[in-house]
Amino acid sequence: MGTSKAVLHVLSGAVPQFLSSDMCSTNLDLVFYSKCLIKSAKKYGPKYLRSLKCSSMSGCRIESYRSKHLGGGLYRNTTIDRLKLLSCKCQQAESVSGVDTGRGNEAWFVDNAKKTNLNSSINSQNISEFDDAEQLKRENEASISNGKAGTGTSTFAAASVDSIEEEAWELLKASMVYYCGSPVGTIAANDPTSSNVVNYDQVFIRDFIPSGIAFLLKGEYDIVRNFILHTLQLQSWEKTMDCHSPGQGLMPASFKVRTVPLDGDDLATEEVLDPDFGEAAIGRVAPVDSGLWWIILLRAYGKCSGDLSVQERVDVQTGIKMILRLCLADGFDMFPTLLVTDGSCMIDRRMGIHGHPLEIQALFYSALLCAREMLTPEDGSADLLRALNNRLVALSFHIREYYWIDMRKLNEIYRYKTEEYSYDAVNKFNIYPDQISPWLVEWMPNKGGYLIGNLQPAHMDFRFFSLGNLWAVASGLATTAQSHAILDLIEAKWTDLVAEMPFKICYPALEGQEWQIITGCDPKNTPWSYHNGGSWPTLLWQLTVACMKMNRPEIAAKAVSVAEKRLSRDKWPEYYDTKKARFIGKQSQLFQTWSIAGYLVAKLLLADPNAAKILTTEEDSELVNAFSCMISANPRRKRGPKSSKQTYIV
Amino acid sequence: MGTSKAVLHVLSGAVPQFLSSDMCSTNLDLVFYSKCLIKSAKKYGPKYLRSLKCSSMSGCRIESYRSKHLGGGLYRNTTIDRLKLLSCKCQQAESVSGVDTGRGNEAWFVDNAKKTNLNSSINSQNISEFDDAEQLKRENEASISNGKAGTGTSTFAAASVDSIEEEAWELLKASMVYYCGSPVGTIAANDPTSSNVVNYDQVFIRDFIPSGIAFLLKGEYDIVRNFILHTLQLQSWEKTMDCHSPGQGLMPASFKVRTVPLDGDDLATEEVLDPDFGEAAIGRVAPVDSGLWWIILLRAYGKCSGDLSVQERVDVQTGIKMILRLCLADGFDMFPTLLVTDGSCMIDRRMGIHGHPLEIQALFYSALLCAREMLTPEDGSADLLRALNNRLVALSFHIREYYWIDMRKLNEIYRYKTEEYSYDAVNKFNIYPDQISPWLVEWMPNKGGYLIGNLQPAHMDFRFFSLGNLWAVASGLATTAQSHAILDLIEAKWTDLVAEMPFKICYPALEGQEWQIITGCDPKNTPWSYHNGGSWPTLLWQLTVACMKMNRPEIAAKAVSVAEKRLSRDKWPEYYDTKKARFIGKQSQLFQTWSIAGYLVAKLLLADPNAAKILTTEEDSELVNAFSCMISANPRRKRGPKSSKQTYIV
Repeated sequence: MGTSKAVLHVLSGAVPQFLSSDMCSTNLDLVFYSKCLIKSAKKYGPKYLRSLKCSSMSGCRIESYRSKHLGGGLYRNTTIDRLKLLSCKCQQAESVSGVDTGRGNEAWFVDNAKKTNLNSSINSQNISEFDDAEQLKRENEASISNGKAGTGTSTFAAASVDSIEEEAWELLKASMVYYCGSPVGTIAANDPTSSNVVNYDQVFIRDFIPSGIAFLLKGEYDIVRNFILHTLQLQSWEKTMDCHSPGQGLMPASFKVRTVPLDGDDLATEEVLDPDFGEAAIGRVAPVDSGLWWIILLRAYGKCSGDLSVQERVDVQTGIKMILRLCLADGFDMFPTLLVTDGSCMIDRRMGIHGHPLEIQALFYSALLCAREMLTPEDGSADLLRALNNRLVALSFHIREYYWIDMRKLNEIYRYKTEEYSYDAVNKFNIYPDQISPWLVEWMPNKGGYLIGNLQPAHMDFRFFSLGNLWAVASGLATTAQSHAILDLIEAKWTDLVAEMPFKICYPALEGQEWQIITGCDPKNTPWSYHNGGSWPTLLWQLTVACMKMNRPEIAAKAVSVAEKRLSRDKWPEYYDTKKARFIGKQSQLFQTWSIAGYLVAKLLLADPNAAKILTTEEDSELVNAFSCMISANPRRKRGPKSSKQTYIV
Repeated sequence: MGTSKAVLHVLSGAVPQFLSSDMCSTNLDLVFYSKCLIKSAKKYGPKYLRSLKCSSMSGCRIESYRSKHLGGGLYRNTTIDRLKLLSCKCQQAESVSGVDTGRGNEAWFVDNAKKTNLNSSINSQNISEFDDAEQLKRENEASISNGKAGTGTSTFAAASVDSIEEEAWELLKASMVYYCGSPVGTIAANDPTSSNVVNYDQVFIRDFIPSGIAFLLKGEYDIVRNFILHTLQLQSWEKTMDCHSPGQGLMPASFKVRTVPLDGDDLATEEVLDPDFGEAAIGRVAPVDSGLWWIILLRAYGKCSGDLSVQERVDVQTGIKMILRLCLADGFDMFPTLLVTDGSCMIDRRMGIHGHPLEIQALFYSALLCAREMLTPEDGSADLLRALNNRLVALSFHIREYYWIDMRKLNEIYRYKTEEYSYDAVNKFNIYPDQISPWLVEWMPNKGGYLIGNLQPAHMDFRFFSLGNLWAVASGLATTAQSHAILDLIEAKWTDLVAEMPFKICYPALEGQEWQIITGCDPKNTPWSYHNGGSWPTLLWQLTVACMKMNRPEIAAKAVSVAEKRLSRDKWPEYYDTKKARFIGKQSQLFQTWSIAGYLVAKLLLADPNAAKILTTEEDSELVNAFSCMISANPRRKRGPKSSKQTYIV
């Protein structure tokens, strides 16, 4: 093994620690290392390398996962010296003052299990499925006593609802990633059984959102604050693929804490944050959702912690504006929706969601509303605010009008005339009724409806995409009536969308030639697997936010109780396969952090209905007025030459 | 018929004229009307309405097409008063001075047939297929004497090569559209047999390009100059669909000259230019190619006429920059290619070319090079020029490296490993070899290659798209070796790409479920029809430009001779159907102007090999140097934090 490989060996650990497991302790003093630079003898090989800090461990169980994990964590040969990585050196002095409280992370954690269990019992009263969970709990009570889980399936199956939450908190805490002594995120997955780590050892922006929310709701603000500020710094990196730099303002998909040799000193190392903007990602997809989620989390941080100083910082304001400028930049498109390539959001592989996928539009709308709340008024931002407000109105009209589908609308499309050339065309996008798939005709319930997955010229993607619909409810992009109809549909289609594990990422799956053509024969996205009709436990939290917003918590509670039957005993998989979500996903990682965090957020929100307000947004009266003014003045069209433009015809 | 319909009745005429055909004359004095306002009694109905000017007619034959055409020209009910249309009033005084020479258009036209016939005979010596045309000519000589054509199929079939060109020039001239007395473009189609005009009575930007080139090569500069300046004015319109305005700088897809009642005067009308940016177009597609073609035509105008005053005008410079800014705006994308929706170019309906279609990229590259030549240096444009140069380098690398396919590359893809996560992945876009279609394995010739149609994450569109490949040759986006290989492939696949009519728009057609899924069951794009494997005579001119650039005129000449056998006798259809282009297209318009102009440009270029230089661009040494410097310094990747950025971690 060459030196560069050896150095990289310690880089893949989510929680920096001493390599020899017997040296690992819960000594919290280690967080006070004032410098990240640790002398080590590179020539002596990896076991002498020291990373900054041993994280606080809550037990041997978690540790045993990690040491296995570390053993298989090497996956690439990239030479470090080509990378100019963000070093922690320059920030170290600053970051110690305040970011790390020195209190450690143990206190809140110990209190946690009791509190959330209390909460869950409060909520269980009107939920019939809770009986099953209680039954499960009673059945398994005898086997709980053994505190160890995770080393064998049989002991894991013994989890009760109480211990499920407890375990989830433990795992979430163990997934925390530290940078120069401060927690900055959570690792994507902490699966000891996986030899193929790929990039699951990174902190993904979108994956961290439920972790961040869980920490916020638990009163642990520092990790979220650090995450926000550190990812902000990554935003401004110059990133290039084959000499091309994508737009400034793009947030990375993920980042990783690396320990690298210090320039000019053979014996010293430093920690660096290394982001990935998609230039290394499989298929080179750019993470459009990252920046949108970042804004949503930033607002949630302020609302939850009461600390508005972060969002008011000059650099944070600049970061918000950079994201907005990227989103609001002039484009060729006739639509107010964001144009993106396939795979630019949670579904980050080719799945036929290129163009204007609903998920991106819902997050875009949500981020616009959140940003508007946070932008401090100043002279330079008037134009941006005007563009933002205009876009909000146009976007909500477009989605509510053209993405909405229910029995009435479907019948209308079924009877569309085609090839209408005019401003007043009914079939404005020239949809051929033949596009209506047989499954849809049967599937659409009499009561309920949903927003379609995508709208393009001559193209409606009728698949039901969960995250887009749920976040349209949460953000108020869907009207109140539409929001209730979406929840009605979820209830009506429970066996398709939840079945044995919430929540189907999309329905139905692409099969046969459709799968071949649209996914490009993706072996990971085979029918009813992964993105193609797989079931994702993390979606529980977005479901719960939507349900709390519409004051229909019973739907979320019912889904949580379904999840509780399997999540822990199945070791918190990333996703489930098959039409009814009966199998743990084919290539599913176990101990996937956002499965864990998603479950916890759902529990926390059910316990405190008001808490969802940190995530939901409402259409304010100003927006409603602007909307109705613009629509009534100009139902479809207003155009004309710019009066200010001077004409030159010689 | 209501008044508004009656008024519109005269709007669809391409060449303004008195409605009663017996009043039509070739009186050129009419072009000197100094005002566009014509008193007419609206209350008396349509026959009293007068449009500005009766165009100069060269014979009754053409007139007979037009009067039939006018009868069926009404297709929509849009009320005029909602439109704020560009009126000619303000420009009239200016436009008369110089734009219209008063010479009329007859002189050059009369000389034309002789000259081009001479040229064609010069070129025919090394082209075997010309013998067929000569044979055809001899066979039909007896029937030429009757000057009338177009009223019956039998007389039309009697065209010789000589009379084909003569007829083409006549038809091209008859397609000219006037605005306030000056020629500003050519109508899309002048088909007397079609009752369904839809929008074929408009001036399409992309359709006018071959017309413009033909006029330029003939020394008729005014119509091109007027077209450039008038479309420039349309660029700056505020255009809105459902309260959303797409980016400033977008050129319309088309425009129309309308006569509308003058505000405040019941008896007067005025002429207006009414653009369509896609907000009325079928499927609401935005014409991304329009602005790119506009820049290419602008440069051709300067190079051909020697009149650089147009491109040096402040408003024209601003127009160029607006288009560039729109193209070069920051985006989310990791690719240097332009991201567009389906149908944003010549293929303007859904055909699975969303994302980064080759045609747009070739035009983009060409327009960048043309713009760089024309931009006048000034303080404010340094940033734009830097962005432009960077993009040129990144774009050419990306296309040459990742879009190129030949036997060697295909075999490489066939053996790709998948799911490579790293910066140095060979299969960078995670293409599954299963995507390689059976047709391609057989079709790829041993000698030759081409640029694929599209590249997306996990997606290569292996179809051969003609315009993109031809324009990649013309613009130098393809390397010299690649350019020759593309022409080699065209020769090797002659029976697939030319057969009985040049030139197949793409190969192969989408069939069966692929057609269903990718086109959305488009009944116009059925297999081997229209955009889906149809054959388009207009592509002759781009083929000829590419062949002249590579000094292989014999390929173009051969294609021209194939076209000459049918074009005139088939009445210049827009497109042909079937695998071998045996049928006139199912819904093909006849007398399609760009079929006519495309043929003429091909003939003119073949006659004067140097003429193609007004359209082709070369990679200059500066660009080559920049390219090699950037690539050698950083073969794949350079990244790091912005050094200038201040870091704030409190």
